[in-house]
Amino acid sequence: MRIIAADRFELKREVEYGTPEQNQAVREIVEAVRTEGDAALLRYTERHDGVRLQAASLRVTEAEITAAYDKVDAAFLTAIREAAVNIRVFHEKQKRYSWMDLQPDGTLLGQMLRPLKRVGVYVPGGKAAYPSSVLMNVIPAQVAGVPEIVMVTPPATGGKEGIDPYILVAAAEAGVKEMYRVGGAQAVAALAYGTASIPPVDKICGPGNIYVALAKRTVFGAVDIDSIAGPSEIVVLADETADVGYVAADLLSQAEHDEMASAILITPSASFADGVKAEVERQLALLPREPIARKSIDDYGAIIIVGSLQEGVGVINRLAPEHLEIMTADPMEWLGQIENAGAIFLGAYSSEPVGDYFAGPNHIIPTNGTARFSSPVNVDDFLKKSSLIRYSKEALLANGDKIITLARHEGLEAHARAIEIRLERERGGN
Amino acid sequence: MRIIAADRFELKREVEYGTPEQNQAVREIVEAVRTEGDAALLRYTERHDGVRLQAASLRVTEAEITAAYDKVDAAFLTAIREAAVNIRVFHEKQKRYSWMDLQPDGTLLGQMLRPLKRVGVYVPGGKAAYPSSVLMNVIPAQVAGVPEIVMVTPPATGGKEGIDPYILVAAAEAGVKEMYRVGGAQAVAALAYGTASIPPVDKICGPGNIYVALAKRTVFGAVDIDSIAGPSEIVVLADETADVGYVAADLLSQAEHDEMASAILITPSASFADGVKAEVERQLALLPREPIARKSIDDYGAIIIVGSLQEGVGVINRLAPEHLEIMTADPMEWLGQIENAGAIFLGAYSSEPVGDYFAGPNHIIPTNGTARFSSPVNVDDFLKKSSLIRYSKEALLANGDKIITLARHEGLEAHARAIEIRLERERGGN
Repeated sequence: MRIIAADRFELKREVEYGTPEQNQAVREIVEAVRTEGDAALLRYTERHDGVRLQAASLRVTEAEITAAYDKVDAAFLTAIREAAVNIRVFHEKQKRYSWMDLQPDGTLLGQMLRPLKRVGVYVPGGKAAYPSSVLMNVIPAQVAGVPEIVMVTPPATGGKEGIDPYILVAAAEAGVKEMYRVGGAQAVAALAYGTASIPPVDKICGPGNIYVALAKRTVFGAVDIDSIAGPSEIVVLADETADVGYVAADLLSQAEHDEMASAILITPSASFADGVKAEVERQLALLPREPIARKSIDDYGAIIIVGSLQEGVGVINRLAPEHLEIMTADPMEWLGQIENAGAIFLGAYSSEPVGDYFAGPNHIIPTNGTARFSSPVNVDDFLKKSSLIRYSKEALLANGDKIITLARHEGLEAHARAIEIRLERERGGN
Repeated sequence: MRIIAADRFELKREVEYGTPEQNQAVREIVEAVRTEGDAALLRYTERHDGVRLQAASLRVTEAEITAAYDKVDAAFLTAIREAAVNIRVFHEKQKRYSWMDLQPDGTLLGQMLRPLKRVGVYVPGGKAAYPSSVLMNVIPAQVAGVPEIVMVTPPATGGKEGIDPYILVAAAEAGVKEMYRVGGAQAVAALAYGTASIPPVDKICGPGNIYVALAKRTVFGAVDIDSIAGPSEIVVLADETADVGYVAADLLSQAEHDEMASAILITPSASFADGVKAEVERQLALLPREPIARKSIDDYGAIIIVGSLQEGVGVINRLAPEHLEIMTADPMEWLGQIENAGAIFLGAYSSEPVGDYFAGPNHIIPTNGTARFSSPVNVDDFLKKSSLIRYSKEALLANGDKIITLARHEGLEAHARAIEIRLERERGGN
């Protein structure tokens, strides 16, 4: 793990836009599903997932969900149920309500908040089929009050068995009642435009491979989409009071995700840096995913030596990391200066996996420096606001002339006249 | 204006993605500004705006702003100042704060809310240089607490005089201290990537022509962008208690915006429909922007006859209009059923221009049916959230095993070990 001075460090960031061939393939799939519906959906499912389905068998049955419960481990079920409760409790605290401001003359101004009506959650197949991510996408939508939450996932994530039973159980525990065995760009297109079997949604969220990401970009506008995640990142700010073993373990928990994940330690202590470097090497050698973690540490990992913790905070704000751990003598001391970080873990016991799985805050967090302007998944992502204006006659009579002045200045005479016709009528008394 | 039954009506929607040539031109401009900075910015400004500038003259001076005040009409200044106060008051009510949940064992969970640090507001030149839109973009950012708000606008919106003085005054009144005379895709690129003269921002908002819209799409990810507006829409739900003259005037105030704007009346009364149709024709003939309004009414306008107001509400929810006016005997009766509408105007005196200019709610509202999932511009658009997790030793000891179970199930062993190393150390007491 390289040790580098703060002024020489630059984070490599890579955003995946796909090859021209991938983009073309996705456009074709999306267009085919949009125009042909189920026929195209079934055709691409056979071609890409190697599974031949009928329209009537797209939907996962209740019997399958019941059967899935028999296949999952009891300790897993206990843990995920408790995690679901914690996630729900944390997101309940984010709830918001419609409000109005009433003025004595009868004018009402306000915001009406409503949940989206129907949301689609994409759950990828293969190694990335994480039950925890199902909870993190579904529960905030549910807390927001979204009445219809639908899950799609490739038909053979669990191999010949069909869909991974852990995914089905996680979705059922989160409260999803409607699940379809479709994946890839074709599933995204079906959610966006609807088919005879799958009614369209208002928003699509959840991670996926490059085809899924490109399909989401393509359908954006017809529906809303969540942000498109980049590789995962952790920054640890630590002084010599921190535990070398804890810091190394947390860095590696990020590095094991992906060869492009980045794990960065920022510290003012050169001896602490040396200690962590050695400990990372020691723990790394023992990991089952050692090749992935090693490549991540070699290519994207770094220990940045700063002149002071204060300087370290400046580096953090420039990096805007997805995850930030602060393991210093007094972590709260620095919180007021942290401008950009998706999730902030304070103190020795707040290891990142605590947040990934269990504590309650969402684990879907802005990557690639986008914490500068975006937020972890939260209840607001599934609410929309409508402005309310009930202007009284008195308010219009008092302010109509000013509105007319502004409209005429902008050359919008019909706007002015819409006010004027009312003023004439009401002032004229006829 | 055509009269049509609800089941035969379909709204034409058009989203502008630009020609391949326009897309290519924008990519070239963005890339040139990204790599060459001011040199490219000045080159494209000369080429597209016909104005030759030096880097040192990009920024609008205080003297220019002072001079602009001498050029604007006193009634305008009074009206825009009062509008600014109303907009500020309405948006202040949207403010939100960081919160935390403290548990007896010392665990803290929360959300830290922070404003974005730097926001760029694009103000188009020409006919679309609306002072009111400057207020609607700037004030929510300011209320959110964004410390740096910068405006860009083409160098000759006011012809040979330079920038339109009304735009400068509106920006100054809204509190903008930093303004640059650049426009087009080159201005968007400068805001996104920064140049020697213009530091980069975190979010770009404000309307613009097709080149500006394409440039915003291109830089999205490096910075946040607001939604890309489509043509403006109004739907009026009215029964025979409504005033034919008011309804016609409000429909026309939308139609005059743009040939592609749509103005739609929904009513259960055939005789009211006939009355509005005749009144639209009468008022239309008197409008200065009659050719634009007529094309809008002919191509996109409609009077939809429904069996009942109840059925009308269903049509509204399908259309998800930008603006909705309800002029029925009791408008509040229907509000609880309105799921999709950007801004809702209730009763005879809440003509849409009241909201466009003066009442306080934002006039930048989702178009093209996107009110299904998005909201008028509001303070949240300029805030971001960071999750906070301070887990206590007790909480980790109590829950660590469940976290390990979930991590191991997902094959993320380093995640499990980051917890395990702590449990061993703390339980072992060493």
